[in-house]
Amino acid sequence: MRLLVINPNISDSVTALIQAEALRSASPGTQISMQTAAFGVAYIETRFEALIGAYAAAQLAAEHHPGHDAVIVAAFGDPGLAALKEVMPVPVLGMTESALATACLLGHRFSIVAISQRIQAWYREVVDSHGLSGRLASIHALDRPLASIGNVQGEHADALLALCERAVAEDGAEVIVLAGAPLAGLARSLAGRLSVPVVDGVSSAVRHAETLVALRPGRASAGSFAPPPLKPNRGLPEAIERLLAGQAGP
Amino acid sequence: MRLLVINPNISDSVTALIQAEALRSASPGTQISMQTAAFGVAYIETRFEALIGAYAAAQLAAEHHPGHDAVIVAAFGDPGLAALKEVMPVPVLGMTESALATACLLGHRFSIVAISQRIQAWYREVVDSHGLSGRLASIHALDRPLASIGNVQGEHADALLALCERAVAEDGAEVIVLAGAPLAGLARSLAGRLSVPVVDGVSSAVRHAETLVALRPGRASAGSFAPPPLKPNRGLPEAIERLLAGQAGP
Amino acid sequence: MRLLVINPNISDSVTALIQAEALRSASPGTQISMQTAAFGVAYIETRFEALIGAYAAAQLAAEHHPGHDAVIVAAFGDPGLAALKEVMPVPVLGMTESALATACLLGHRFSIVAISQRIQAWYREVVDSHGLSGRLASIHALDRPLASIGNVQGEHADALLALCERAVAEDGAEVIVLAGAPLAGLARSLAGRLSVPVVDGVSSAVRHAETLVALRPGRASAGSFAPPPLKPNRGLPEAIERLLAGQAGP
Amino acid sequence: MRLLVINPNISDSVTALIQAEALRSASPGTQISMQTAAFGVAYIETRFEALIGAYAAAQLAAEHHPGHDAVIVAAFGDPGLAALKEVMPVPVLGMTESALATACLLGHRFSIVAISQRIQAWYREVVDSHGLSGRLASIHALDRPLASIGNVQGEHADALLALCERAVAEDGAEVIVLAGAPLAGLARSLAGRLSVPVVDGVSSAVRHAETLVALRPGRASAGSFAPPPLKPNRGLPEAIERLLAGQAGP
Amino acid sequence: MRLLVINPNISDSVTALIQAEALRSASPGTQISMQTAAFGVAYIETRFEALIGAYAAAQLAAEHHPGHDAVIVAAFGDPGLAALKEVMPVPVLGMTESALATACLLGHRFSIVAISQRIQAWYREVVDSHGLSGRLASIHALDRPLASIGNVQGEHADALLALCERAVAEDGAEVIVLAGAPLAGLARSLAGRLSVPVVDGVSSAVRHAETLVALRPGRASAGSFAPPPLKPNRGLPEAIERLLAGQAGP
Amino acid sequence: MRLLVINPNISDSVTALIQAEALRSASPGTQISMQTAAFGVAYIETRFEALIGAYAAAQLAAEHHPGHDAVIVAAFGDPGLAALKEVMPVPVLGMTESALATACLLGHRFSIVAISQRIQAWYREVVDSHGLSGRLASIHALDRPLASIGNVQGEHADALLALCERAVAEDGAEVIVLAGAPLAGLARSLAGRLSVPVVDGVSSAVRHAETLVALRPGRASAGSFAPPPLKPNRGLPEAIERLLAGQAGP
Repeated sequence: MRLLVINPNISDSVTALIQAEALRSASPGTQISMQTAAFGVAYIETRFEALIGAYAAAQLAAEHHPGHDAVIVAAFGDPGLAALKEVMPVPVLGMTESALATACLLGHRFSIVAISQRIQAWYREVVDSHGLSGRLASIHALDRPLASIGNVQGEHADALLALCERAVAEDGAEVIVLAGAPLAGLARSLAGRLSVPVVDGVSSAVRHAETLVALRPGRASAGSFAPPPLKPNRGLPEAIERLLAGQAGP
Repeated sequence: MRLLVINPNISDSVTALIQAEALRSASPGTQISMQTAAFGVAYIETRFEALIGAYAAAQLAAEHHPGHDAVIVAAFGDPGLAALKEVMPVPVLGMTESALATACLLGHRFSIVAISQRIQAWYREVVDSHGLSGRLASIHALDRPLASIGNVQGEHADALLALCERAVAEDGAEVIVLAGAPLAGLARSLAGRLSVPVVDGVSSAVRHAETLVALRPGRASAGSFAPPPLKPNRGLPEAIERLLAGQAGP
Repeated sequence: MRLLVINPNISDSVTALIQAEALRSASPGTQISMQTAAFGVAYIETRFEALIGAYAAAQLAAEHHPGHDAVIVAAFGDPGLAALKEVMPVPVLGMTESALATACLLGHRFSIVAISQRIQAWYREVVDSHGLSGRLASIHALDRPLASIGNVQGEHADALLALCERAVAEDGAEVIVLAGAPLAGLARSLAGRLSVPVVDGVSSAVRHAETLVALRPGRASAGSFAPPPLKPNRGLPEAIERLLAGQAGP
Repeated sequence: MRLLVINPNISDSVTALIQAEALRSASPGTQISMQTAAFGVAYIETRFEALIGAYAAAQLAAEHHPGHDAVIVAAFGDPGLAALKEVMPVPVLGMTESALATACLLGHRFSIVAISQRIQAWYREVVDSHGLSGRLASIHALDRPLASIGNVQGEHADALLALCERAVAEDGAEVIVLAGAPLAGLARSLAGRLSVPVVDGVSSAVRHAETLVALRPGRASAGSFAPPPLKPNRGLPEAIERLLAGQAGP
Repeated sequence: MRLLVINPNISDSVTALIQAEALRSASPGTQISMQTAAFGVAYIETRFEALIGAYAAAQLAAEHHPGHDAVIVAAFGDPGLAALKEVMPVPVLGMTESALATACLLGHRFSIVAISQRIQAWYREVVDSHGLSGRLASIHALDRPLASIGNVQGEHADALLALCERAVAEDGAEVIVLAGAPLAGLARSLAGRLSVPVVDGVSSAVRHAETLVALRPGRASAGSFAPPPLKPNRGLPEAIERLLAGQAGP
Repeated sequence: MRLLVINPNISDSVTALIQAEALRSASPGTQISMQTAAFGVAYIETRFEALIGAYAAAQLAAEHHPGHDAVIVAAFGDPGLAALKEVMPVPVLGMTESALATACLLGHRFSIVAISQRIQAWYREVVDSHGLSGRLASIHALDRPLASIGNVQGEHADALLALCERAVAEDGAEVIVLAGAPLAGLARSLAGRLSVPVVDGVSSAVRHAETLVALRPGRASAGSFAPPPLKPNRGLPEAIERLLAGQAGP
């Protein structure tokens, strides 16, 4: 099985973090291909940055998906995810939806721990778009500058652990979701140090991607996740134009 | 007052419809500048097409907003709207949010009448993202091919009227929202033929834009609608790069 | 254009505040007529006081609306508003619904700042009746006695500003709504002192009234906002009796 | 125990129906006093008619409550109910809230069967104001003119039964609520003819009033159901003025 | 009238508390029969303990209901309640649903005060299962070990009162619900010491049971509260087997 | 990896269906142990039957989990699931929660197709308990008697397919969930015959169980999914008593 994992940001250091956790998480026989955004910002905290990341992810997915069994959008917040589900001929998964799926299997109410204050509103809206606000106990985030986006875990380990513990003690979190690709792998190192289960988006996405491929649920040829109907277009990146032309939505 | 109105699609015929209704709706002294997407599809029905339209709208807004008092994204579904609200130094309004604001002032439950079956799921999600699902009585849509996106009103007038009447009679709609830029101006011609108020997105957006400019509520320098914090970026269209650099989010 | 603005309370000092802000906000050519409740209480904080204010507003609207293009109920909480929308032949707007409409165009989550502890539960229920609880970040209110209802702004300016700042910092408010007719105009004087947009109910209502008049969306002759069906009545104020008789609901 | 039952409408024939069912339902030792609105309409179908009925009910309650242990507002839709709960020194109950309380003890999802098409939107909003929309399976209503408000049950018995059966068969109603004072007592005569439990508002209100009196839960002296704070007022009916003066809210 | 009151726990001391409050609350002529679980735990705080209590309650109800007019499951959280409503030929009520019904008649938002930290999540889920989360102001609970489950009131009276006051002052609770059979009767002794009404589950259940018996709403023979359809079974306690066989669901 | 799969019903034919699909779905190296309820009913359609199945499942889980890495409760509706998550030292998954997790990764709104009319209300409540009602497009069910619970797929294949197609065409279902252990494996045989993805509970549960085991998220030692606190108990099945004693909840 081959999974295409897309980092919609331009930070190679984050791509490396994602790749490392993806490789640790994948089943034997699963191969991981990484792609990093050709354009965009260092990391996504806002809706506008997500808009850019969504377009970058779409181009990478359109260009590189051939030969893969599933695609993973590896930024928390899942830029472009629902859009890509429409056009890709294989399953597309996001870090947030995957982490939430795992969290919902482990407890009823989860908290999200994130890397910046600014990022919280966007995460809240993403959880809400999944209809899961009723299960969100809280969101907590670091409140200090990030010296290096590739080393957030190293620099802020204690603060992140404290935020997790606060979510359990004060908000009744039954599961912790560590949010943001820069935290990829942190769940693994917190193992045994928290009093509730802790979920990582990258490993969840890899495993759920494997599951969707294995279950062969079929692809939508009707409804809102069928490929878009053919219609005139202009000026699109070649891979996207090809993708739209190659599909035949109703 | 100068309003920049962006059609995130590539159809000049739809731009013309939008412009005509914007001009009919604007207060004396309000000037309308139109921009049509340089790339994209003929009209937006799906999440993926909205992803493209969002990026096209962002580029146009970044490039053309100087000299304007507000920006309007003139496609129902509001591609890129929340993202643009963060970065633009002037108010940004969408057709959907504007039409819903008007509808909520006229009654408690509204129905949406739209131009294609496929478009309905996306509209439903947009209404839900505004937290207004509880006020949505129904969505109805044409179920036939559109020969010309610039002449939907002409070809399908009776069918559209019938959908409006059905929403009132069967779903308890207290207000009708005519959705989609291709229907711009239709509300005006249905005046007096429906038993409930009818709302148009373009005219609502123009008037609400004038209101936001007049009220001078101030711009966000904190919270999730402040400009994105400065961070490294690469490969962005020059106008977007300039916009991000020119703002100084916290 | 002529707007009838009704203060459902008996305080002339508050009527003066409302009038001043209405005049500042109105477009050129818009005329404002003020009416103050003939009976009732000094200001409305509770559901029972709103019941009285609703009846007072209904009498004033029934008697004075001829010659006006729209009616504004100028107390936050909108006493009698939905009822008046049924019977009036012109648009009727409230301060709360108008402020919320403006706030929703400026951000996703808003906080309300109010003049007394007691008033909060009622406001919460009004926001909920609009289906907008999901966008309400918080309500904060003064916790001290009001020496003069006509001078709340003067006496408590610093405390009100502190409540606004707290809503932004602690609750993630992306917009502030200043609630209560006694605060009419305060948004204007806070301009530039808050880090998020701030909304005033009176100016919002005046501008949205102008918009509804301009858009001519049509009046309901069916559904729950059509005039009440004719039926026997007894003992009503003459203006209300005349109003009910003059309408012909289905 | 003495219960004051207020008909907020002017129809003596409906008062008689209410009284008859109240007497049939009351426990031994409970006395029923009836009051009919001195002004208002024949029956309430709309928000504006409810506004009138609320004020009429408030005057009757203020004047006649002395000597009673509880007050019942006997119109479905509960005009003025929450307001009266604030000022009355004894429990105040409404037909709707009482019927819903009974229905919720008998099943999870209930349907409402009502006497006119127009009345449905108002009922829906009342159910929503109680936060119980999630348990409302449907509302069905007669769609024919009512020759006599005092004889709806006699004239439309079969149609009403058919609406009940439809709610069970099509909407999954687990309980039926017969709505509207003109249907008082109908539940009793449908006994054994429906396949799910059926609830009447008057009998529910009488029994729940007895329960609240017996349980002595205490009265609010803080929070939003405490009596309104003292403040200047003018022009109020003497009984209401006396009531406001006699209470001492915080 | 005879009411069967089931304590789904094994604690005789709690049964005694329940019985005492049931006897104080019952109308003249109502007889109370008590049953204590033959197996289970000392008191229920968790979902797993509720699973056990539900099965114990089912056996007691199946065996002892003959000769009774209604059954009460006397543990807060209502273990097995909805299940028992299906199979019992008489009304079945729970402490939670009864307390919430009373609370909803007394105010809009209620808080729950409970005996242990652990118990809170389960209560929250029960309130949510009734669709009443929107009216739940907060849950507060003792945070100290319980030396004797039969004497929680005696040992922790001051702490419980403080929790009630905190819910009113900080969370806007308009009604307090004292949760848990070990607190049966406490509401009575707090009378006059709280600034909002206070509700007890046992007395509410007894009174509402009397009401349901008196109203004779009829029993479900269709829908999801009809008796389960006959089907093969094996190994069930004799009373449950007899109960299933004796009913004839559709 | 060893998974314990529990059929909470007494039907060996259904156990065989579950086992066959579990074996087809499991990854190489995963072993499946089956257990069938020692007592209970032929299949679960109602809340009362689920109460019995929950207790049967709890006994089987308590007795047989040693030596397994995860436990699956293999009845749609997940009887006893949340309770078992508290006490089991390994992950516990249900068919419904697993199917919903898969469905949510494949589309936004899903429909459930089930084997009997009666079963629908229970399923609706289960979806609601997960907070996913907003994503439930509809539930459809067979409306005919089931001659053999082990051969529902064989006898009713066409009718089941028709219900799936109706959910897509009429309700906008973007994913179909085939509900009920008697339908285990049907998704596999419908592959390619439906226009949207189709999800099976057994295969979803097996794959998600493997994922949770692989991810090692940690077990709750605090919060509401920690083991129940130790307290006196009496008369419990020995395996359950041992389980409660062996855990040490806070």
